[in-house]
Amino acid sequence: MSRRTLKLGEVLLGVGGPGQHNTWLDPRIPANASVDVNWYLARAREAEAAKFDLVFIVDSQFITADSPNHYLSRLEPLTLLSAIAVHTSHIGLVGTLTTSYNEPFNVARRLYSLDHISGGRAGWNVVTSGDAGTAGNYSRDEHFDYPTRYGRALEHVEVVRGLWDSYEAGAFPRDKESGVFFDPDKQHALGHRGEYFSVVGPLNLERSPQGQPVIFQAGNSEEGRDLGASVGEVIFTHATSLAEAKAFRTELRERAAAKGRAPEGLLTLPGIGVVIADTDEEARAKEDALLGAKSFDRALRELGRPFGWHDFTRYDLDAPFPDVGDAGARSFRTQADAIKKLARDNAFTLRQVVEHLRESARSPFVGSPETVAGTIEHWFEEGGLDGLNISVNAAEEFALFTGRVLPILRARGVVRSDYESTTLRGNLGLPVPGNRHTAARAIAPSPALAP
Amino acid sequence: MSRRTLKLGEVLLGVGGPGQHNTWLDPRIPANASVDVNWYLARAREAEAAKFDLVFIVDSQFITADSPNHYLSRLEPLTLLSAIAVHTSHIGLVGTLTTSYNEPFNVARRLYSLDHISGGRAGWNVVTSGDAGTAGNYSRDEHFDYPTRYGRALEHVEVVRGLWDSYEAGAFPRDKESGVFFDPDKQHALGHRGEYFSVVGPLNLERSPQGQPVIFQAGNSEEGRDLGASVGEVIFTHATSLAEAKAFRTELRERAAAKGRAPEGLLTLPGIGVVIADTDEEARAKEDALLGAKSFDRALRELGRPFGWHDFTRYDLDAPFPDVGDAGARSFRTQADAIKKLARDNAFTLRQVVEHLRESARSPFVGSPETVAGTIEHWFEEGGLDGLNISVNAAEEFALFTGRVLPILRARGVVRSDYESTTLRGNLGLPVPGNRHTAARAIAPSPALAP
Repeated sequence: MSRRTLKLGEVLLGVGGPGQHNTWLDPRIPANASVDVNWYLARAREAEAAKFDLVFIVDSQFITADSPNHYLSRLEPLTLLSAIAVHTSHIGLVGTLTTSYNEPFNVARRLYSLDHISGGRAGWNVVTSGDAGTAGNYSRDEHFDYPTRYGRALEHVEVVRGLWDSYEAGAFPRDKESGVFFDPDKQHALGHRGEYFSVVGPLNLERSPQGQPVIFQAGNSEEGRDLGASVGEVIFTHATSLAEAKAFRTELRERAAAKGRAPEGLLTLPGIGVVIADTDEEARAKEDALLGAKSFDRALRELGRPFGWHDFTRYDLDAPFPDVGDAGARSFRTQADAIKKLARDNAFTLRQVVEHLRESARSPFVGSPETVAGTIEHWFEEGGLDGLNISVNAAEEFALFTGRVLPILRARGVVRSDYESTTLRGNLGLPVPGNRHTAARAIAPSPALAP
Repeated sequence: MSRRTLKLGEVLLGVGGPGQHNTWLDPRIPANASVDVNWYLARAREAEAAKFDLVFIVDSQFITADSPNHYLSRLEPLTLLSAIAVHTSHIGLVGTLTTSYNEPFNVARRLYSLDHISGGRAGWNVVTSGDAGTAGNYSRDEHFDYPTRYGRALEHVEVVRGLWDSYEAGAFPRDKESGVFFDPDKQHALGHRGEYFSVVGPLNLERSPQGQPVIFQAGNSEEGRDLGASVGEVIFTHATSLAEAKAFRTELRERAAAKGRAPEGLLTLPGIGVVIADTDEEARAKEDALLGAKSFDRALRELGRPFGWHDFTRYDLDAPFPDVGDAGARSFRTQADAIKKLARDNAFTLRQVVEHLRESARSPFVGSPETVAGTIEHWFEEGGLDGLNISVNAAEEFALFTGRVLPILRARGVVRSDYESTTLRGNLGLPVPGNRHTAARAIAPSPALAP
């Protein structure tokens, strides 16, 4: 078995980190990056030159005038990834599609088309839509409750995977000599009738290079962790300390094992910010400047998002953290609950909560190239992560990581020096699932052996 | 006003004409063209070199083992068009999306993303899904009945257009000096509550180069014609004679005028096959060979499609055309009714119906370059069409059209010799719809003038 190596993803956010600071003001970043396909193409090509495993596109489908800048106007993930596919050759293309407001047949088809177009580099980040207001854009009065959201998600992924097995390999001989285009014995309807979806099939697209595009998942709630352990192959998460990262990764692996899955088939990639400078002090100063670029008022407004865009500006900043009732119960509930607990446990005022959250947005991966490489290696060797999903938006910042941190990690054998495959699954070292119908055929007794 | 010129589209079908013959056997066409992105890229580049206005991708979401070869396995239209967008610069990109099984918010977003990525070249072919079996892939027991299908379609398009007006031009100053990213006064929720859809908005994507991607429509039923006259800007149709083409175009223009639309805002482009050779005789022989490549058995099976894939192989071929009841009532009803009428009016047997349909698949645009150019010019000048949506799959056939027919039409001033715009709307000469909110602002009295 080959040595385990660190996997590398880059989060392409367009403008701004994950709501953390006003990156668009950075003079090195085009202010309209979130809608500029050429900016995305350039970043993906850079990541591919640095042999990254994947680029990743986040998503949401609900905005208000108070939404963070980069949410207000951005390109739809799969439309964007298809454009990137034909200007790259090896890097994985991971897009976010919600199971709450997309039909499984359409999701299966779009991701499988991307897998064909990219030669086997498609990945699906399965989400259920945290913004409760999303319902209003899809003819629903209310967002699904948590059990329904995640029940639908699990069944949705199962249907999509079933549709991906519609055709076995070799279903299309396309032999011009004999005139045989198609072998109907290798086409299979799905005939799914479940609690939330009924899908007859078959999908109108033959087996793709990966057979099954890679499933990514990011939910942190109880239901989200269960979904990840059930169907996730790569888990995106947040990690603010090694202990937390290790506990999360161990838990997910144990949950997967309890479901009969091999823990090696599940990789954990925390999404992290990386800030690098010549010295640790300079790097910390750089992070201070980034965090400081976001106003208190903006941070106060964005606090509302996990609570279903609850308006916190109407409260006294120096009174105890307000009772917001069940705001957030159908939005980012886990995050909202954690903030309530933080306030309660520390008897924080609203101002203190906002300031604490700003401070806790600091990354553990800040410092000189040696410091950052050392921290990454340490977390990796200690079992805190299988890879990183890093957010750096300016090309110069990315160049610091690839030019100064990666060489150290490569010299130490932590990161491989070239692609090992042309598929995402191959580069991540994930097993290739066989087609269920081919497998069924293989284990059936052959006619000659039947009694 | 500039001279009216003939518009040119190319139907990229992958493999095979519209169910007419087994093109995949042609040694000049890769047998897997329908899933080969490079084949599509090459064809789109050729069409762009010939200054075509657009390439067009058809679609369907339901197959059986009896479906025509090129339906069995093909790429999803918008995923494919996004890849083509970043390898072309001027040609329009028209994709088919059904209003029956896609949410308006998702449709608005994907087409608007394509419009951004392509710099203003997106078009939407609005369809309602003719195959009744499609319902089974989308958790429905039955396809929508005709009035519902088309009622939903009209409302769907209105919602999509409303979402495209979510942001006025200039909503994103993105001024790094002043720190102003966004002007919230230029963001508008939609607040649509209709019979079939409720969509709050706004769309999370700013105004695109075309403002509104171009609406294409193709239905031929009473409901389809009404939809086309209501919202269509380009109408795809079939035409077997000049008289028929002229009657259709006149009717659509009159219907549009009755709805208060300028008839110039509605272009009719018949989808036609073109067969060219040095002489008329050679071209006719070439067409005979193409039609003959399709077996009687295949033609008999494909007859089932307008009737909801009714199985015609179980009837006596030489008995009168069978009574199939209301098969097809929720599929391609208009086409099914026309076939029933044909059989009834002529007292045809089943075999005679199949043979008649094969014969009527002949194109009026077959002959020497001079003949074909002359026919096109005649139909155009007589008001039978505003352009052509041509289906030729082998590069050699396309080269005959561009190399020998187009120069004649250009010399006569029927076809322009270069692009006039970088947007599809611009090249088609269609008006650019203003943003409804900007228009409302413009007609409101200014505060200084108010009494």
